[in-house]
Formats: sequence, structure tokens, C-alpha cells
Amino acid sequence: MSRWFQPRVGFKLGILLVFPMIGLWPALASAGEATKRPATVAQLFEFGPEERLLIIHADDAGMCHAHNRATIDAMARGVINSASIMMPCPWILEIVEYSKTHPKADFGVHATLTSEWKSYRWRPVAPWDKAKGLLDSQGYLQHGVLQAATSASAAEVETELRAQVRRALDLGLKPTHLDTHMGTVYARPDYFAAYRKIANEFGLPCMIPKLTAEEQAKLPLPLRLVASQIGESLFDSGEVTLDRLDGGYSGKGPLADQKRYYTDAIRGLKPGITQIIVHPAYDGDELGAITGSHARRQRDFQVFTDPEIAKLIREQNVRLITWREIGQRQAELRKRLGNEAPTGPAGK
Amino acid sequence: MSRWFQPRVGFKLGILLVFPMIGLWPALASAGEATKRPATVAQLFEFGPEERLLIIHADDAGMCHAHNRATIDAMARGVINSASIMMPCPWILEIVEYSKTHPKADFGVHATLTSEWKSYRWRPVAPWDKAKGLLDSQGYLQHGVLQAATSASAAEVETELRAQVRRALDLGLKPTHLDTHMGTVYARPDYFAAYRKIANEFGLPCMIPKLTAEEQAKLPLPLRLVASQIGESLFDSGEVTLDRLDGGYSGKGPLADQKRYYTDAIRGLKPGITQIIVHPAYDGDELGAITGSHARRQRDFQVFTDPEIAKLIREQNVRLITWREIGQRQAELRKRLGNEAPTGPAGK
Repeated sequence: MSRWFQPRVGFKLGILLVFPMIGLWPALASAGEATKRPATVAQLFEFGPEERLLIIHADDAGMCHAHNRATIDAMARGVINSASIMMPCPWILEIVEYSKTHPKADFGVHATLTSEWKSYRWRPVAPWDKAKGLLDSQGYLQHGVLQAATSASAAEVETELRAQVRRALDLGLKPTHLDTHMGTVYARPDYFAAYRKIANEFGLPCMIPKLTAEEQAKLPLPLRLVASQIGESLFDSGEVTLDRLDGGYSGKGPLADQKRYYTDAIRGLKPGITQIIVHPAYDGDELGAITGSHARRQRDFQVFTDPEIAKLIREQNVRLITWREIGQRQAELRKRLGNEAPTGPAGK
Repeated sequence: MSRWFQPRVGFKLGILLVFPMIGLWPALASAGEATKRPATVAQLFEFGPEERLLIIHADDAGMCHAHNRATIDAMARGVINSASIMMPCPWILEIVEYSKTHPKADFGVHATLTSEWKSYRWRPVAPWDKAKGLLDSQGYLQHGVLQAATSASAAEVETELRAQVRRALDLGLKPTHLDTHMGTVYARPDYFAAYRKIANEFGLPCMIPKLTAEEQAKLPLPLRLVASQIGESLFDSGEVTLDRLDGGYSGKGPLADQKRYYTDAIRGLKPGITQIIVHPAYDGDELGAITGSHARRQRDFQVFTDPEIAKLIREQNVRLITWREIGQRQAELRKRLGNEAPTGPAGK
């Protein structure tokens, strides 16, 4: 899968000892016809059983100007149909202001507990003395998932996630969903609980992918720990929101390779809800100084503004859906189940 | 003079009522030969009476990548010989890291109490709940000098200034001086006291210009309030560090006009210590999205990397000095006066 969850740092096997890997999903996945449980999240959310539903999601909005401009341009052309904003980052105002003049556009809060680059970094949204475990020795958010997971308490994570959503609301964003930068909220069961708690508190759907045993096995460790938490009860209650998650192209090949990766992904879509994560940005001095992945990010923009991709999606009868729609269907499901989430300010 | 101190917002006459304008400097300036007081700060600091001394100072380092790169490039070519870093800003690490590999370069802390642009803004360095008066309704530092001066307490200013210098030290900067972004520390006598207190606490010279009555009269209000605080006792104790301050070209003319402004300024230098403030940055997508002054900032870079300017400085027998040198001479003077500043960690 993808860069999305990859810790950009050395791997600490110690964490293996801390979290047992109890995979509940395989039992569910094999339950099949024998129960009344729908085969897909999509069916649970009352989409048709054969529908191939797709969110093309731009991560990292607000991170820098190059990301904002490319995200805005790509969304305006209509193929990328959802994005999420990194609230601790310097350029959030630009994209939040855009959201106000484009109220139908789908923008979530990209829960950000790490600051992964070398020279361009960010600090927590909460007063930093309230979340010291999130800080590295330089006072920024930790570089990697595992550094965060071995130093921040779940209480600090909860404080910071709440501060991020509140800040989004205070600036006037009407977030459609909550998701996660580098998957840090999946690195520990107690982080995962805080993530779901904050989503419920503000009435937001949050990104939780359903993963088969086979999909779990392919994941790097932090996400496998997560995956083990996602079982039958989360599915039945409507908290699982995606059937499949594709973290996007992570190679170093030319544009043609990157485009082929995505066209194959679109052609190969199975029934259910899939999210493909992309990182569209304009390559240039700013982006080049931030990240070594600048060229790949520019190519994500190029691929997803290429008319052939829009044409392919039409030809394949793939239906683009948004987090706004998932949120509505999730709320309806919960109402039917008598399991309504507390409606926070974002749900108004 | 210059953009350096201009509030970028509407003018609040109300502030007039708050601070009496007692100009002490005119009495000093007219004292002339009748006393033993040296005629210039330069003479007090034991430079020769006829020496024309110049600091060409780049403000706003750390503000964005475009400023960092142009500041670094301009300093490497040798004419801009000092700069100061805006510690609340997103790109500080890049310039702090440069300072570590160029330990002779002059870098100060640019005390920053405002966040003046529209889409690209910054928050305090201190935990924001400890300095709420510094915040605007969006949680950023106030847009302008007068908004800050009418909402932040001197205690909050002191807390934030201390946090900014401490953060510089924590990141490994060895600051040579303290100066001020948009002159906010001059907007109130109690801010000015906090500014001097923090400079003393960390053993740093801070930028305090000597201003004649005529120079005072030309200043916009916030700086006139300041100027009224700078009198004989501050001069005699060695706290006044500049004879003259030129805030740089603030027009909208072409490169030739901007160059003429600076060549005239250099030709017209009088004996004593003058600082010319410049804002070198590379024009481009990032800078253009931040500020309407992007072209002027690029031209500051062009003028001060033009070999003709270096040649003019040589021909005019102007001596370039740094804040490091001012700090050393100020420390020697205070030692002679038995008036040594407490030596903080930066003085080591």
C-alpha cells in the first residue's frame, strides 16, 4: 500500500511487545452468507451490492502553499473530491478561506500528531505545555509515528485532537470528516479510542478502513496494530467507514508509471467503498525545500487532472462519493440502530 | 523612513491619549560641546569621531523559505552583514541550521509580536494560553502594532519575548542581538521596558536608535511614543546602540529607484553608527502568496548583491560593522562604567 502510514524513521521492535495482535477481522470476513451481516461497508450504508464507490482524497492540505494551490485547482476540476487539512500547519488559513467560498467542497481535519520534514516543521495546536509528550527535543511534533507512540500519552493525543477540531471550527471550517496523517492514531489502541471519541464528540465520521486478514498481513507494523482493533462490533455499529484504502503511488518512477498505478487501481476496484489517497502539490522552490517527494506530489496533481482519468472513471461506472455523503449515511444507519453519536458542534 | 515600523492597519487615535509624548532627546542633542557627552553612540563605543559605520541588516529571516534563501545568499556574498530571525515563524529551522555551520555570521532574534499577512500567519512561541492578549480572534498574533498595543499586557509581551529568545537558544542559535519586528516593542513604554529587560537578561545588545527631535517628528505615532523614551540616561549607560536607523526603501518604483534610494543613503551617511534595514527575498509563488511587497523584497536582494553597491561602500570609506561588534563594545563600555548587564545564557 502506501506512504500514508509509513513511519519515516527507524523501526522500533519494542512496540511489538506492547500491543497484542489480535486479528478479529478474519472471523468476520469469513462469516459470509451464514449471517445477516452485509458483505461490505457500502451495503451497510445502503449502497447497492455491486456499486463501486470511490473517494479520491487529497491529504496534507494546509501543509504549505504548494499543496493548497494544487488541491484547490485539482478539486475545481472535479476528480479529486475530498481533502483534509493539517491544522497545526502554517498555511491552513488559505485553504480554510477557500472552503468558506466553496461550502459544498469536502474538507476534513487531518489529525496530525507528527511533523516529519527536516527544515519545515510545526508544533501542536494545543498549548504546547499541555502536550509535552507530543514534542521532540526541538519543541516540534515528533518526526515519526513510533516516536510519537513511545512518548505521548493517550490523554495528550486526545487533548491535541480536540484542539485541532476546535481550531478548525473556530476558523470557520465546517469539517466533513476526521482522518489521520501518517496513521499515528492507529499506532496504539488508546490513541485509536481517542480518535473515535473525538470524532463522536464533534459528530464527524472518521476514516476507519475494514481490512481482511490478507490486507492486514501486508501492512507495516503500526497499521497492523490498528487493524487488529477493527472488528465485528465496529463494523456492526457503522464506525467502519471504508471497505478499502489505497495509500496511493509510493514509487519513484516516471509519470507514466504513476498514472498506470492509478488506472490499474481504478480498473481493479471491487464493489464497496474505496478511498485512494493522493498528495497533489505544485513542485517548486517551496515544495522542493520541504520534501524529497516533491516530484511525486506534482505527478499526483498531473494524473488527477488528466482528462483520461475522469474518462476512465466514467467508463468504469465508478461512482465518486464524498465524506459528506458517508457522514449522512452513517448518521442514518446509527439512527436506525438506535445508536446515534452525540452530536457535537460540527454536526449542526 | 520606512515600512519597518508602519502599522499595516488603520490608525487608532485613542492611543494618543494613553501615552504622553515627552521628548527628552532634543535637550541631549542640543547639549553639544558644552558637556563631556560624546556626540555619537559611535564615539561612546570608542569608534573614531569621523568614522561612518554601517550595518546592512536583513529583517524577517525565518519568515518563509524565500526569505531564508535570499538572506543566506546575500550574506554569503558579503554586503548584507547581519540579520534577525522571527522565532514564531514556520521556517526558522532552516536559517538556524545555517547559523550553526556559519558561526561567524550575525543573527539576532527579531522580537515578533505581530502576524501581519492575510493567509500566512503565525502564533506565539509561548503556550498561547499564557499570552492571550497577543492573539487576535483567529488565534494568531495580532495583525498590527496598534492592535497589539491595545490588547496585550506588558507581562504577556515579556513572557513572549523571553519565550522567543529561549527558543532560539534551545534550537542552538547563538544570537548576537535583539531587535523588533514592526517596532511593536516601541509602541508602549512598558513594552519598551520589557524589551530592554529581556535583552539584559540574556546579555544581548538590543536595537535602540538615537533620534533627534527632527527625526522624531518624522516618525509615525507608534515610534514617536518610543522615541520619547530614549533620553540622556539610556545614552549615557550605553543602552542606545544606533545613531541612525534607515528603514529601507518603501516605494513602489522600479529597481533603478530602489537602487538610487540606497546609493543616496550610503553616500549621505554621517559619522556614527547607521543601520539600514532591508528585506531580501526571492520573488516567486510562495512570497507572492504571502505579501504584496514581494517585488520590492526581490529588488532589495538584487540591490544588495549588486557589485556596484559593494564598490560604493569601499569608495565611500564606509566601515561595515556587525551587532556582534556592537555587543562587544557595549559590554566593554558597561564594564568601564561599572554598569555591567546581568550575563544571561546568550552572553556566554
